[in-house]
Amino acid sequence: MTVAPEAPPVYARTEATTPTRARDRMRYDADVVHAILDEAFLAHISFTAFGQPHILPLAFGRDGSRVYVHVSSGSHLATAVRKAGDEGLPVSFAVTHADALVLARSAMHHSLNFRCVIAHGPLRRVTEPDELVRGWSVLLDHLVPGRSADTRPPNRKEAAQTGLFALELVEVAAKVRTHGLSEDEADLGLDHWAGVVPLRVVAGTPEADAGVSPELPAYLAAWTAEHS
Amino acid sequence: MTVAPEAPPVYARTEATTPTRARDRMRYDADVVHAILDEAFLAHISFTAFGQPHILPLAFGRDGSRVYVHVSSGSHLATAVRKAGDEGLPVSFAVTHADALVLARSAMHHSLNFRCVIAHGPLRRVTEPDELVRGWSVLLDHLVPGRSADTRPPNRKEAAQTGLFALELVEVAAKVRTHGLSEDEADLGLDHWAGVVPLRVVAGTPEADAGVSPELPAYLAAWTAEHS
Repeated sequence: MTVAPEAPPVYARTEATTPTRARDRMRYDADVVHAILDEAFLAHISFTAFGQPHILPLAFGRDGSRVYVHVSSGSHLATAVRKAGDEGLPVSFAVTHADALVLARSAMHHSLNFRCVIAHGPLRRVTEPDELVRGWSVLLDHLVPGRSADTRPPNRKEAAQTGLFALELVEVAAKVRTHGLSEDEADLGLDHWAGVVPLRVVAGTPEADAGVSPELPAYLAAWTAEHS
Repeated sequence: MTVAPEAPPVYARTEATTPTRARDRMRYDADVVHAILDEAFLAHISFTAFGQPHILPLAFGRDGSRVYVHVSSGSHLATAVRKAGDEGLPVSFAVTHADALVLARSAMHHSLNFRCVIAHGPLRRVTEPDELVRGWSVLLDHLVPGRSADTRPPNRKEAAQTGLFALELVEVAAKVRTHGLSEDEADLGLDHWAGVVPLRVVAGTPEADAGVSPELPAYLAAWTAEHS
């Protein structure tokens, strides 16, 4: 299916997406899940091959309730997907932002504020030519919205040579910690500095490649300003 | 063993740490591996439980050639480690930094500059009281060097209640992409802006909790300045 299904307003809560602990940190609203995904530059994917767990960081993009990832065709992951056949390879997919250090008076209450999305499901290789071209646009526009229109698109040969894989967002949920300190009453009078140190990712000045004649395009200038 | 083994100057290259592709991006020097780990606020860990791959983001710290991770005692990961027994639970551990967007003239040559460390090995629960206390110091000083001395240390009961786990860095390597564009000769004349957009993580102004009387400590002011 070339075009991804639309996401529901709220993703279904399932056994796999209901943790044993800290359920108050879970979020199932699609807009929360999608915002966490859309803000990230890379994801990590977990899979089992030769009886061992593996992990891989990779570039990705979201199309509705589908995620596309780019994996080298010669990688262990690509091989494992091929061996898994038509049902796809079971994977676990994560995107996480570290938003703040939470420095408490007591060692045990130190924490990180974070936003995370975890999805489970079968990963399948994209082979249909129209979906390959669409998937590549999704990956590029995920980096910088508008980018796919300002490049030479992949020809069908290129698109087929590189590994594009898709995961449907069905078993998916977000987990967030956004609050300040949670300390034991007895520790509040201790003479230690305590508080929150915010973190964020910023973009520096774009560095044009040698021989580039066009000025910095408007969509990229806007994106850089938004991330400065 | 309470104190972690010293790391070798260069980690051994093994079958598990030699990829099928892009071998020129691999780094085995301990100082490269450690710098990537020490700069990160969180890691992702991959494990297999009930026949399915799982992934989890978590806080961590490094002590020589050992990594400590903090996991809720009630989590699936803690349960899986308990079930695995004395040999530990096989895991795959990753830390990744996205350092720059690489925007090429052709869609296919878009990339990310990144630095990543991946380690494989058995995860074991820390139970020895001295190592629990030491491990907690490592976790705190990983967030901000010097932090562990400016907190109320965990008492033994607290340390035993929360889940601290250790992974020895033996099967470990870094993978890095740091260069600019790699484009096809035929695309160099295309009229698209192309170049690199650097990314970095910055810390904002520390926000003290209500009722904190000490001034911002020097180690934290220095750390914040370094990350601004």
